[in-house]
Amino acid sequence: MVKHIMERFDSLMPYREAVLIFDGVPWNLPDHDTVNIEDAAGKISACNVFSPVDIPDKNKAAMDGYAVKHLDTVNASDHNPARLDLAGVNMAGGTAGEPLKDGQCREIYTGSIMPEGADAVIKVEKCEQYGDHIYVYSPVMAGENVASIGEDLTRGSTILKDKSIVRPQNISSMTAAGIKSLKVYRNITIGIVNTGMELVTGQINNSTGSLLRSFYRMPFIDTLDGGIADDSIDSIMEKVSNLREKCNIIIATGGSSLGRKDLTTDAISRLGKMLFSGVSIKPGRTIALFNMDNIPVLSVSGLPVAALLSSLIFVNRYVHNAFGIELTERMPAILEERIHNKTGFTTFQAMDTFEKGGELHARPLETTASGRISSLLQGNSFTCIDENLEGIEEGTRIIINIIGDIRWE
Amino acid sequence: MVKHIMERFDSLMPYREAVLIFDGVPWNLPDHDTVNIEDAAGKISACNVFSPVDIPDKNKAAMDGYAVKHLDTVNASDHNPARLDLAGVNMAGGTAGEPLKDGQCREIYTGSIMPEGADAVIKVEKCEQYGDHIYVYSPVMAGENVASIGEDLTRGSTILKDKSIVRPQNISSMTAAGIKSLKVYRNITIGIVNTGMELVTGQINNSTGSLLRSFYRMPFIDTLDGGIADDSIDSIMEKVSNLREKCNIIIATGGSSLGRKDLTTDAISRLGKMLFSGVSIKPGRTIALFNMDNIPVLSVSGLPVAALLSSLIFVNRYVHNAFGIELTERMPAILEERIHNKTGFTTFQAMDTFEKGGELHARPLETTASGRISSLLQGNSFTCIDENLEGIEEGTRIIINIIGDIRWE
Repeated sequence: MVKHIMERFDSLMPYREAVLIFDGVPWNLPDHDTVNIEDAAGKISACNVFSPVDIPDKNKAAMDGYAVKHLDTVNASDHNPARLDLAGVNMAGGTAGEPLKDGQCREIYTGSIMPEGADAVIKVEKCEQYGDHIYVYSPVMAGENVASIGEDLTRGSTILKDKSIVRPQNISSMTAAGIKSLKVYRNITIGIVNTGMELVTGQINNSTGSLLRSFYRMPFIDTLDGGIADDSIDSIMEKVSNLREKCNIIIATGGSSLGRKDLTTDAISRLGKMLFSGVSIKPGRTIALFNMDNIPVLSVSGLPVAALLSSLIFVNRYVHNAFGIELTERMPAILEERIHNKTGFTTFQAMDTFEKGGELHARPLETTASGRISSLLQGNSFTCIDENLEGIEEGTRIIINIIGDIRWE
Repeated sequence: MVKHIMERFDSLMPYREAVLIFDGVPWNLPDHDTVNIEDAAGKISACNVFSPVDIPDKNKAAMDGYAVKHLDTVNASDHNPARLDLAGVNMAGGTAGEPLKDGQCREIYTGSIMPEGADAVIKVEKCEQYGDHIYVYSPVMAGENVASIGEDLTRGSTILKDKSIVRPQNISSMTAAGIKSLKVYRNITIGIVNTGMELVTGQINNSTGSLLRSFYRMPFIDTLDGGIADDSIDSIMEKVSNLREKCNIIIATGGSSLGRKDLTTDAISRLGKMLFSGVSIKPGRTIALFNMDNIPVLSVSGLPVAALLSSLIFVNRYVHNAFGIELTERMPAILEERIHNKTGFTTFQAMDTFEKGGELHARPLETTASGRISSLLQGNSFTCIDENLEGIEEGTRIIINIIGDIRWE
């Protein structure tokens, strides 16, 4: 057994190679559904959306005031105001009314349709009313305070791109354009099976399961608790098999360490093809990937942080490859303190990121003990260190992935 | 009527003064509930949480290998290996077993409890097994590959701070510590009433309502659609009153412009005390604030972007004052292009923010037409310009608020 284990792990696969292997598989994707646009918030769009109309669809007032022909005001001044005939009112929600004649103006409210012939709106504050006449004391320009046809959205302009996260501004624009439903991808479902007698007996609590379930639960991802398997091949096979029809991605935690007779990998090998086992990453080098009917099955460490950061690499690739979306927000930051790295390992380092003097700065947390949840509690982000680097020098610009609240000093 | 309107708006209240007035009211806050910790994800905590236990609670193996007394290995070398008696195995989920005697070792797996007397774990790869003996070729240090009591979380250490967003790492740590439920604030409920005959008649679609509802829907905020009121005092009063018992914040859109006889403000004045009306902000200067039984009622523009950005100031203050939380993520960025500002107005400017050369850069979108939803579609962020500034120069470090996907170049 000892010899077998050494063979499995003495040559870990480089990180980049593991990613290339993952990227090479035509993984299944979720189907799409057509949903009410307000239910689409935070989901991934499954089509481009172009505006079918001009918005506004008619010239409308952009201010409360008086609709005028600007030519009637060209010579207006304090001493020589333009005197216009007040010819009715265009209420919001009403029609354009009669066309405006030369020398006329009409009371109008923001959003009301402009009368034909009018080409500007004079603000209420710039006029005075005496009886049926409005006095205007300065000229207005053609188009002033008018929202003209297509000014906000031109017919044919892009409201939403295919394969992007649906934001409130997309929803609002679709509403404005009269679009009521949208084709979106169904949520990606990630099934999670935790293995280990120590979980079954309750000797330790399932903090790895609760980390993965709560981390991956996002507007466009559902997580499914596949239960706890004991340390037996049958139990692991059963729990993973149960998720087969329901999930797009499966993560099995524990039982993938050097010992325990590689229970998890042995079990999953009977359900799918092993693509790699053991990757030169820290934490989480024991990660293995299987292809089960084009569903990726990841066997990861039982330790929470290792399980999260190693699985995140591949869950993120899945989402990135399919949709061009990143699961964690990335930001540039300045490294506050040198980070050491063990060359040959691509390292995911917990960081504390904060704003100082108009820039983001990031400081590494303790570099040992990859399994310590405290590094994520004390930090708010992590960074990735290339396997070829012995470290990263203080002052270097790095990329951080945000998983908590950035501090403002 | 003209005169009345001019009085109302010719002296707009400065932004800072409006914020001070808002901050001075003891607004109602949501109650709290005790929920299952996994249901607490994204909610606001209503207590501090300290670890009631040490984690790990016993010394445990941090590697698969052999538990040893490190003193038995001090002279070990390739030529002179330490030969230890293999005395059983400590499986994960099992007990500490018999205390280890001098010269003994025990097979052990990651997470297993260390036997009494053992103080280090030798990796499998560094040993060889011949029958009942393990040969060790190099010394180990005391504590090597051992997760010692309290190493991850010390009893009494902070797992979660009061009034903070509950993150996956908090949930995982609580799980590890055996905590099953958590006191969190109930979701803040924001009720939204849209007014305007043009919405009732369907002449324009309710893009303002859909923007506010989808923007404010967050893990710790629920939105409640209060329906559409026509342009009558009774209708607006009825819709706003209906939300009274159900909401922590109410936003009424439309009917607050210079015209329309100030319907919304007249209606809400009958339900609560007006604290201000008209603030020197762009967009959204027509905003008014009312106190209705210590529920803030905001009367805002009917235009979507003005309604969102002006209401966001005060919704954000509500959340900030109560919990120290910001509704939008803020980041520092370098201004790519000068922004103009009309002095006397605090301006919220739509921006396009992108990463370039290890820093965030931001470029303003068209500065006119505050109501244009296209500025939010084309941008991904906004910035706030102080009323005393005539503009902000290119190259200045500014703060952006993120509402979309930051682009990476």
